[in-house]
Amino acid sequence: MAQKPSIPKGTRDFSPEEVAKRTYIMNTIRTQFQRFGFQPIETPSFENSDTLMGKYGEEGDRLIFKILNSGEFLKKFNENLIKSIKTSLSNLRVTLDNTSEGNFSFEDFASNFKKEFPNILRAHKEIKFDENLIDLDELTNDIWLRIRGIIIHNDNLYDMLLAKDNTSLSLLSNIIYGDFYFQMGSKYVGNYISEKALRYDLTVPFARYVVQHQNDIVFPFKRFQIQPVWRADRPQKGRFREFYQCDADVVGSDSLWQEVEFVQLYDAVFTALKLDGVTIKMNNRKILSGIAEVIGASDKLIDFTVALDKLDKIGEEGVTKEMLEKGITQEAINKVAPLFTLSGSFGEQLGTLKELLSSSETGKEGIDEMLFINDAIENLGLKTAQLQLDVTLARGLNYYTGAIFEVSAPDGVQMGSIGGGGRYADLTGIFGLKDVSGVGISFGLDRIYLVLEDLGLFPEEATEGVKVFFVNFGDSEAGYAMKAIAQLRAQGISSELYPDAVTSNKQMKKQMTYANRRNIPFLVLAGTEEMNAGTFTLKDMEAGTQETLSLKELVEKVG
Amino acid sequence: MAQKPSIPKGTRDFSPEEVAKRTYIMNTIRTQFQRFGFQPIETPSFENSDTLMGKYGEEGDRLIFKILNSGEFLKKFNENLIKSIKTSLSNLRVTLDNTSEGNFSFEDFASNFKKEFPNILRAHKEIKFDENLIDLDELTNDIWLRIRGIIIHNDNLYDMLLAKDNTSLSLLSNIIYGDFYFQMGSKYVGNYISEKALRYDLTVPFARYVVQHQNDIVFPFKRFQIQPVWRADRPQKGRFREFYQCDADVVGSDSLWQEVEFVQLYDAVFTALKLDGVTIKMNNRKILSGIAEVIGASDKLIDFTVALDKLDKIGEEGVTKEMLEKGITQEAINKVAPLFTLSGSFGEQLGTLKELLSSSETGKEGIDEMLFINDAIENLGLKTAQLQLDVTLARGLNYYTGAIFEVSAPDGVQMGSIGGGGRYADLTGIFGLKDVSGVGISFGLDRIYLVLEDLGLFPEEATEGVKVFFVNFGDSEAGYAMKAIAQLRAQGISSELYPDAVTSNKQMKKQMTYANRRNIPFLVLAGTEEMNAGTFTLKDMEAGTQETLSLKELVEKVG
Repeated sequence: MAQKPSIPKGTRDFSPEEVAKRTYIMNTIRTQFQRFGFQPIETPSFENSDTLMGKYGEEGDRLIFKILNSGEFLKKFNENLIKSIKTSLSNLRVTLDNTSEGNFSFEDFASNFKKEFPNILRAHKEIKFDENLIDLDELTNDIWLRIRGIIIHNDNLYDMLLAKDNTSLSLLSNIIYGDFYFQMGSKYVGNYISEKALRYDLTVPFARYVVQHQNDIVFPFKRFQIQPVWRADRPQKGRFREFYQCDADVVGSDSLWQEVEFVQLYDAVFTALKLDGVTIKMNNRKILSGIAEVIGASDKLIDFTVALDKLDKIGEEGVTKEMLEKGITQEAINKVAPLFTLSGSFGEQLGTLKELLSSSETGKEGIDEMLFINDAIENLGLKTAQLQLDVTLARGLNYYTGAIFEVSAPDGVQMGSIGGGGRYADLTGIFGLKDVSGVGISFGLDRIYLVLEDLGLFPEEATEGVKVFFVNFGDSEAGYAMKAIAQLRAQGISSELYPDAVTSNKQMKKQMTYANRRNIPFLVLAGTEEMNAGTFTLKDMEAGTQETLSLKELVEKVG
Repeated sequence: MAQKPSIPKGTRDFSPEEVAKRTYIMNTIRTQFQRFGFQPIETPSFENSDTLMGKYGEEGDRLIFKILNSGEFLKKFNENLIKSIKTSLSNLRVTLDNTSEGNFSFEDFASNFKKEFPNILRAHKEIKFDENLIDLDELTNDIWLRIRGIIIHNDNLYDMLLAKDNTSLSLLSNIIYGDFYFQMGSKYVGNYISEKALRYDLTVPFARYVVQHQNDIVFPFKRFQIQPVWRADRPQKGRFREFYQCDADVVGSDSLWQEVEFVQLYDAVFTALKLDGVTIKMNNRKILSGIAEVIGASDKLIDFTVALDKLDKIGEEGVTKEMLEKGITQEAINKVAPLFTLSGSFGEQLGTLKELLSSSETGKEGIDEMLFINDAIENLGLKTAQLQLDVTLARGLNYYTGAIFEVSAPDGVQMGSIGGGGRYADLTGIFGLKDVSGVGISFGLDRIYLVLEDLGLFPEEATEGVKVFFVNFGDSEAGYAMKAIAQLRAQGISSELYPDAVTSNKQMKKQMTYANRRNIPFLVLAGTEEMNAGTFTLKDMEAGTQETLSLKELVEKVG
């Protein structure tokens, strides 16, 4: 291989320093998760395709990485396809036989064929398409299109078919088969040659886990999960095809104390990361539903929140204009005008909302929930974060049913949300376990990394490497050094010997450069003189000082 | 979805307890790695296929999980295939034209065709096969086989071809195309529709990393890596399709101090895991080469070591018999007879070997290396492991060039090797960076897990979950409890409130069961009485005692 090796676009190598910093973030979060009583689980990197497909919408399905089956992955599909084509041609031939000259209609045949053929395939013992992987109605339709197209454009083939010659039938099958592959291959083959797919998020695998292990789980189940996920997104700045997600969820209880706890958890994690001043924004799906009721246009809810979210930027007039453009009536806008000037504390804002949504039962329910959470948090206090009501917060409208969370970085840091979550009334219904409510939050690791880097918040200890470096003066000295190194390591002090012996000044410089580039703070020189005296010469690289010590003193000094 | 969800065979879900135990092992190893001066790196889960393919032998290639390209992955391949088939048919037709009747020989044509056709494909502007993904010589051969087969079995087709009818040519192409797909599809399509593959081990990605980032790396580079790998192996007991590897390697130096350090590292890790009495077996590729020289049959080396390895089980006579059966001469066996009775310490065994291999320069070199390592280890001492010479140790003969390591569990534990490694003279040559020697070891996480489980060596702290559980008596009491919980958590004590309030005896029992099943050691009851008194009733679940405490006392008690 001549060219320099590379990695797939959208993926990353992590250097020692990057791994250390990432580990620091993950460990900090993990510690808080555990203090809050969350338990870790891990799920496989790939799931059965049917576990994932159809759970993230059409766009999501397209972005799922599929794993190719091993071995002769096309064989069974191809054999079944050939058989089904032959079957359909026989079928056509029988129809032609039974039709008096000139009376055959492709259209009549087609509609019969499409109705009957899937059942014929199912009944045909030799054909074993897995209907989980292939839609037989769709396949029938496509096979018919291919047959029709080829026969219409080749009179000879129509004659061949009428001639009832089996060799010709086989030949015709092969032509149709080839054409089918050429025209439709990817569409069918994709489903059929891949039965596994890489995890797209942690939520669906978690739901699968809960259902699969429901008998072993003690509910309410508080779990956390920190694992990579994969998405075939177009790579761009800050968006990767492999990235870690970091989720905490509770399933099995409706209690609002959990929402309270998640606010505290966000506060605890960001405080532990020394990232003071994050804003935990909250909204409630029921409040949004209430607004939709009041404006009399549930289908306009997203347009409404998107416009309202721009209040800071384009002012009341601009927002009104955008809403009108989106088809929200002036009357509706008047009704919710107080939203434009919503101000004051969380509680005061809720007061305004209560009046505004007085006609909506759902809206009032949402307000009561938020009141409970806000009261509890006021009572308990937050360390460094602020809790804020944000009625424009509208993430996950398709699945969140109650509280909605989003965390933004401290003022002055240009970064999208660094965390988010919400409550969903039905997590596990997709896998057949009904009525399991859940609520959860996640942390945006890559963005948190960038924010900490930006603000210089990674503690020095997080990236500390080797502490003590021993110059190698030759085998005998190295043996002496290795004894000291063993002592240091036993005391938990990371230390190492340069593997090759100094044989020249150039070599000495090489070892120094090595220690320097690795930012090792202490350097030990132990040559013949030190060996004879049973001492070690310690250089403090930062202070620039040097002293001669016994082993005991050395361990104490650098420890 | 009606059926219970499941995960792909060979993969695993890990429960909270399992994650905790695995994390304990990984953290213990990681701590020692860092004390020894190794630095963590991480590489992407999937690599470009050409980074991985061809690096693990034919069997390995088959076991690599390939990721399906997104979108219309077959389209380009199909278009190019059709074009190349048409081109070859035109070619054949021209040849037929230029041949006088009866003089055409398929065999002559075939040999010309196979020689010329790949170049025709390369010159054909419309055809753009990526030769990194497809072998055009092989493709040519296979296309010809299909053409030949189809024409020989269908006289009509031969006539069609002679008739120079373009429609027929097109038809024939389609038939051959279909047949090609049917017979050979998987073989070519596999390479063509997948450009990425899941990591198969950590060594090849490490080599790729070193070459790619060579300008940023300070050599010698001591790195460790703990990440999952994936193999499409047939799942069986103890063998998984997704499992973690845990490797430490140094590249960029030939120093034998590194081998010494790896022996110490194994000792340090297994001592830290309280797994006393593991045996670190060592051999050297050069000693094995020396033996091969002495028996005069390098190609019989594996047969020889396999037979010798059975000495304990089948005795000297059995081993001799097996060697003779494998074609090793009696004379050769006589020469190395001392191996059958090799005994004594590491050093004594080396003495015997030295005599035996006196005629082999390579063998002597290997012995000198082992003497150095053994002397150093004797001088430094090991904590709980034993170092043992094992001349039958022959893992990685294809890539190891010096030391070979293997660790076996303490006597009495039925388990294969729990670690292994060795020195390789050329790690990065496959990616174009020559002369980078390396040496490394790995830990078998899954097996270590089973051994620790078997011997009951997981410390209780490793799986400790929530420490303090607060019964929820209602919102007001819960608020009171949450204040105490915040204090406990701030002190690093994991604690939680049951989210739902007790509303009945049954509810009370449910909360108790929950605390019990989660093995929570302390239970706090704080109802109206306690609230009024500003106290908490603490139940020590193990001791069965109960006492009333102030918040300060509570924190001290459970801390």
